Amino acid sequence: MNERDALRALAADLPHAGDDAAVVDGTVITTDMLHERTDFPPGTTRYTAGWRAVGASLSDVAATGAAASAAVAVYADEAFDREELERFVAGAVDVCEAVDAEYVGGDLDEHVEFTTATTAIGDVTEDGSVTRDGAAPGDALCVTGEWGRSAAALRLFERGNATDDDEAVERANELFRFTPRVADGLALAGSATAMMDSSDGLARSCHQLAEASGVGIELDRGAVPVHPAVEEVAEDSAERFELAAHFGEDFELLCAVPEPEVDAVREACPAGLTRIGTVVEESGSEVEARVTADDEPLPDRGYTHGDG
Amino acid sequence: MNERDALRALAADLPHAGDDAAVVDGTVITTDMLHERTDFPPGTTRYTAGWRAVGASLSDVAATGAAASAAVAVYADEAFDREELERFVAGAVDVCEAVDAEYVGGDLDEHVEFTTATTAIGDVTEDGSVTRDGAAPGDALCVTGEWGRSAAALRLFERGNATDDDEAVERANELFRFTPRVADGLALAGSATAMMDSSDGLARSCHQLAEASGVGIELDRGAVPVHPAVEEVAEDSAERFELAAHFGEDFELLCAVPEPEVDAVREACPAGLTRIGTVVEESGSEVEARVTADDEPLPDRGYTHGDG
Repeated sequence: MNERDALRALAADLPHAGDDAAVVDGTVITTDMLHERTDFPPGTTRYTAGWRAVGASLSDVAATGAAASAAVAVYADEAFDREELERFVAGAVDVCEAVDAEYVGGDLDEHVEFTTATTAIGDVTEDGSVTRDGAAPGDALCVTGEWGRSAAALRLFERGNATDDDEAVERANELFRFTPRVADGLALAGSATAMMDSSDGLARSCHQLAEASGVGIELDRGAVPVHPAVEEVAEDSAERFELAAHFGEDFELLCAVPEPEVDAVREACPAGLTRIGTVVEESGSEVEARVTADDEPLPDRGYTHGDG
Repeated sequence: MNERDALRALAADLPHAGDDAAVVDGTVITTDMLHERTDFPPGTTRYTAGWRAVGASLSDVAATGAAASAAVAVYADEAFDREELERFVAGAVDVCEAVDAEYVGGDLDEHVEFTTATTAIGDVTEDGSVTRDGAAPGDALCVTGEWGRSAAALRLFERGNATDDDEAVERANELFRFTPRVADGLALAGSATAMMDSSDGLARSCHQLAEASGVGIELDRGAVPVHPAVEEVAEDSAERFELAAHFGEDFELLCAVPEPEVDAVREACPAGLTRIGTVVEESGSEVEARVTADDEPLPDRGYTHGDG
């Protein structure tokens, strides 16, 4: 059973397994595990790792439209280097500060590989919490920020490592330290009918949101806001779209917003809000056709991470 | 740097690093990581692992005197077996139910070894939250439940595995599934001046509580309540005390309670409350003499786990 099938199996048993975070009595809680081999390319500093790992959980809180309040992390490694540990904590503290939350510590564990498990909590506001399943035909499909940032970072890590280019590695680290969209999620909470973060990439996230809401999605490829760093690493527009739509791990928000509210809510989103498509009736035909981009089916796939 | 020194380094930077759990705006949060090689002996079922891992975090909530509300877990393994995953979740759900909390899911991750990271949250009641640092000379030192349970379980796992004794393994699993002392923590919250759970064993926990509170502790060895299962596996009274006081992972509560309140609060503890010693002035001499048992210094050490 792969991870996706396993998650489906779990979803049948647990009320909140399909969403980015669970809500219990007005408190949002979410947890993630990241590890060196798959999540932190060579060159990733411990400061960046702390920022990014805790940021991933804060992003899940953001996706519910809640106010992030605190985060904790388990830091596991073969051995504990004091400077590395302090840098990890500094990254965790700083990403929490960036979203008005508090990093309150965690646990240490000896492990065969650098691994971190992070948890964030938040408070649901009077606007309520948003799930993935409320998108309705006619809603505008919108995203925060710019896409392809993590894809560009990975390419820069690869280039920097291959050519001993410290500047490229430094820039890659900067790109890896995203701001979790908590402020945007709060702004969207009162309007969005469905919302999620984009850890699995735009294409896959669209499929997930469409499936959860029982709708179809029509995307406008040209409307997807691509991060400027993608220009540096992509050779043509097809590769740009590939990196922006399929790579994932950008931790931006994807949401459905009723048409009349789009302009007002856009003003309130510090990361910007771009309309990239429209929610439509479910087609009833092939699952792959549930999401289209410029009238072509958009495959439900992530990016194959460079080693194939 | 070993784990203990690393924790000390962290404690200097983070406000809550010395306690079992952090408190943020009335919400308690705590996180732990456990993995197969060090925490789940061969024979541990996935149901027991789910119960025990989530229970460890609920125990940290209990140690603050808060009401546990929810828990999440990351389940990481080389491959996902549906039945194992479902059993893990069933154990997590059941231990939450045992303390009136809700298991609300989590995350999956591929990992080289079965690893789980658990987080629990809780709500501080009107009695406030309890930390490790408030014990005062004259307080009674008390513990919940009976000690040595996990030590006995480990011996039964070893015996059961060596002799293909399924009953011993089954009993070991039962002993491993402790009830987190949330109800007892809530009963103690209004009275205890200091409280913690006993993940590192009685001796080490006494040292930690004494150090945090700036006091000494005088223990009565004979008063320590020893779990009946220890009788089966220990050869004499010295070994019984060794297993009850130094092994750890019993997840009972250790607390200081003002003398006049001991009898009343004992009535309110479902797991029972036993007075095992007295909080005294800090001796000012050797650190090792901070905690004594029958007037002999009680070493600040855990149990050496069977392999040496």
